Amino acid sequence: MQPDISARPLRVTVWNEGRHEKEDEPVAKRYPEGIHGAVAAGIEENLGAAAVVRTATLDEPEHGLTEAVLKDTDVLTWWGHKAHGAVDDAIVERVAQRVLEGMGLVVLHSGHFSKIFRRLLGTTCSLRWRSEHDRELVWTINPSHPIAAGVPSPIIIPEQEMYGEFFDIPTPDELVFISSFSGGEVFRSGCCYTRGRGRIFYFRPGHETHPTYHHPDVRRVIANAVAWAGCTSPTQS
Amino acid sequence: MQPDISARPLRVTVWNEGRHEKEDEPVAKRYPEGIHGAVAAGIEENLGAAAVVRTATLDEPEHGLTEAVLKDTDVLTWWGHKAHGAVDDAIVERVAQRVLEGMGLVVLHSGHFSKIFRRLLGTTCSLRWRSEHDRELVWTINPSHPIAAGVPSPIIIPEQEMYGEFFDIPTPDELVFISSFSGGEVFRSGCCYTRGRGRIFYFRPGHETHPTYHHPDVRRVIANAVAWAGCTSPTQS
Amino acid sequence: MQPDISARPLRVTVWNEGRHEKEDEPVAKRYPEGIHGAVAAGIEENLGAAAVVRTATLDEPEHGLTEAVLKDTDVLTWWGHKAHGAVDDAIVERVAQRVLEGMGLVVLHSGHFSKIFRRLLGTTCSLRWRSEHDRELVWTINPSHPIAAGVPSPIIIPEQEMYGEFFDIPTPDELVFISSFSGGEVFRSGCCYTRGRGRIFYFRPGHETHPTYHHPDVRRVIANAVAWAGCTSPTQS
Amino acid sequence: MQPDISARPLRVTVWNEGRHEKEDEPVAKRYPEGIHGAVAAGIEENLGAAAVVRTATLDEPEHGLTEAVLKDTDVLTWWGHKAHGAVDDAIVERVAQRVLEGMGLVVLHSGHFSKIFRRLLGTTCSLRWRSEHDRELVWTINPSHPIAAGVPSPIIIPEQEMYGEFFDIPTPDELVFISSFSGGEVFRSGCCYTRGRGRIFYFRPGHETHPTYHHPDVRRVIANAVAWAGCTSPTQS
Repeated sequence: MQPDISARPLRVTVWNEGRHEKEDEPVAKRYPEGIHGAVAAGIEENLGAAAVVRTATLDEPEHGLTEAVLKDTDVLTWWGHKAHGAVDDAIVERVAQRVLEGMGLVVLHSGHFSKIFRRLLGTTCSLRWRSEHDRELVWTINPSHPIAAGVPSPIIIPEQEMYGEFFDIPTPDELVFISSFSGGEVFRSGCCYTRGRGRIFYFRPGHETHPTYHHPDVRRVIANAVAWAGCTSPTQS
Repeated sequence: MQPDISARPLRVTVWNEGRHEKEDEPVAKRYPEGIHGAVAAGIEENLGAAAVVRTATLDEPEHGLTEAVLKDTDVLTWWGHKAHGAVDDAIVERVAQRVLEGMGLVVLHSGHFSKIFRRLLGTTCSLRWRSEHDRELVWTINPSHPIAAGVPSPIIIPEQEMYGEFFDIPTPDELVFISSFSGGEVFRSGCCYTRGRGRIFYFRPGHETHPTYHHPDVRRVIANAVAWAGCTSPTQS
Repeated sequence: MQPDISARPLRVTVWNEGRHEKEDEPVAKRYPEGIHGAVAAGIEENLGAAAVVRTATLDEPEHGLTEAVLKDTDVLTWWGHKAHGAVDDAIVERVAQRVLEGMGLVVLHSGHFSKIFRRLLGTTCSLRWRSEHDRELVWTINPSHPIAAGVPSPIIIPEQEMYGEFFDIPTPDELVFISSFSGGEVFRSGCCYTRGRGRIFYFRPGHETHPTYHHPDVRRVIANAVAWAGCTSPTQS
Repeated sequence: MQPDISARPLRVTVWNEGRHEKEDEPVAKRYPEGIHGAVAAGIEENLGAAAVVRTATLDEPEHGLTEAVLKDTDVLTWWGHKAHGAVDDAIVERVAQRVLEGMGLVVLHSGHFSKIFRRLLGTTCSLRWRSEHDRELVWTINPSHPIAAGVPSPIIIPEQEMYGEFFDIPTPDELVFISSFSGGEVFRSGCCYTRGRGRIFYFRPGHETHPTYHHPDVRRVIANAVAWAGCTSPTQS
């Protein structure tokens, strides 16, 4: 219902570390197009013509995040896990500057420990975790927030890695979701921030050993988050 | 850039006490269509076909806010000043329930003391004031917020009633604007809240003795606020 | 470590509906001094000479909340459940005014539906609930907050009524605790607000059918909350 | 009125760049004990035996901020201006880790551009400024906050450097003061954050060319902020 103040589609870049898919056969089978492929497909199926999606991965030159690519990106999504340290500091700083200028950033799951997330938030971003077979329930606590649109409360994810509090992050500007796990742990799993002129959303679900990025509700939330994070760009110029 | 998730235009009801215009000739001259007429025109000129605007005033039956009208309203704007006490408590409660269910509410200027604003916020909503010839500067402190889109920082309003801190409101969920006045006073002049499923925006500028609602930047902010407050409705059904 | 800026002890009034204890024998056995007696004892054992505690109940004249008592109270705690409707509106308003002037208010468990809590917050304060034999885990998400001092994370409460999201409250100014229950539900169970000059804390645990107010960690949190809510009074005069 | 839960005085380290005092005679005359000397005296005169204050400056070995000193510090105050770049990155990181572990940090005036402040907040921390003869008025917008205790609203500072919005910081967890200047600019001049387990307060007033740190209200606010920021330490061990 918000008036469409720009006819231009949102330019989205889906970034993925992309190492598990190369080195771990079950992951490769679960995500034959890579985790980035699944994330990109989820955004496309939900936003349709309102978004143009490309992907980039760690092992491309400049990790696929050249000045030109970032300049042409309204929202960047970020998935990384075991190779956070391999991301070049200069490129982290380049991404950080673009966020502060107004580019949206959607950080997924183990991206909580990425250099870019910690650079922008300033805290350790540490948490409890357990890689067993927990069931995750994702509860909406802000039902009119646009990122929660169209998903049930709770979203039920049958098997997941557990993340638990204390999650060492700044108090979110808006908290949208809280998860619980089979062990009784809780986690702030949908967190909105504005930093500089850019919007940041952290969304917890998703692990390379589970088919989370094929889950329709998870895909819907990521697409909603991309739309939300991209909402500010027209005011930048 | 946010995808337009509904083709339906936003249904806006502009509410006005409407007494000054009847009883005070300079106000009648300044606002020949009433303050509601000026506010409605500002929304229409900014949102165009994305909004359908009607008006309602205190002296209509049920103050023009029947169950049917409210059910057909996505966002209500509110201007009142000298007749807050004449608003029927049952209708205040009716409006409050609709906000909690998801209707947006944009409260203007002296509406800070309206029954509906105090009912929803819970505090006294008192403030300092002085009706002289202050110049108001409205500074944007959240430049990527959609309500600040398209207006300069500061917005310059040559003559205004002064409102000063301490403004006895709950800490806003988001603070968008801070004003200063010729006397050096400051005021939180653009405040966002979510209450229940409804979004509320308070915007300070505007007084019956000044042509504020003809000011293009003020009209733009009110229209932006209407779009923002109406953004949640599609998720309600 | 905060310097003790006043030698005067904190004046605390523990308010209780007090009906279950009269009408329901198991409750009377569980709380032989009333729920108010248990809450008062918990505050005294934790704050010692730093607090002077009295109690008041619904069936006393003016519910024990005369002008004189309120004037002599720095922090009021509130427990009610089945007789919210029996609390006189004029006394609710009297309490509300005192909170807005600077008196602290600690609302416990089923007090979420009390008139005073809804009056000050403005929302419905509704929630999901189930009265079975859930285990509650109360996780600290703000470990340096003074209200979380000295308690483990999680606090383990073996048997409890379940409260679940969506809890229809304004976004807390500070969120200190999140609970989970055996059924996988989550709940914002420790919520700080400032309204006017008064501090409000809502704390979820506690039900007349469980011995929650004898639990040492629950008592510690309530005492911490009383100290926190009373922290502002010296600046009022 | 908050019970004094520790008899141990607060250990405060007042840090100062200390270059203007050496290189600029009017500054040396205005602050014969250095800016750090004036800040330390203001804390001592307000907190008395509740605090033990030491100082440290840029040109000492390790900038006076050895592991031992930081370990023995509950709250660190920071003033820097023209030599931010001379602060060693490793020591910035050492201070950041201590804040995340629970040490309080009070950042003064031009410290907004210090490495430590930007490291912990993540944004550019840029602002408008003008070094003329502005009068600053510091208005309290959170009158029951302990940092505002005992000072008038507004605090009047006859001559000051001007800082204006947009101040590129994360939305403060609590906003206590807003300043206005002779030119009509506004500024969020008292900002609370929690990062990790540490509390951070930014306070705007103060410039080497004005006697701001001799102003009794400014000294009171800094002392209040030190007490507030040190309030969490007892829960760390």
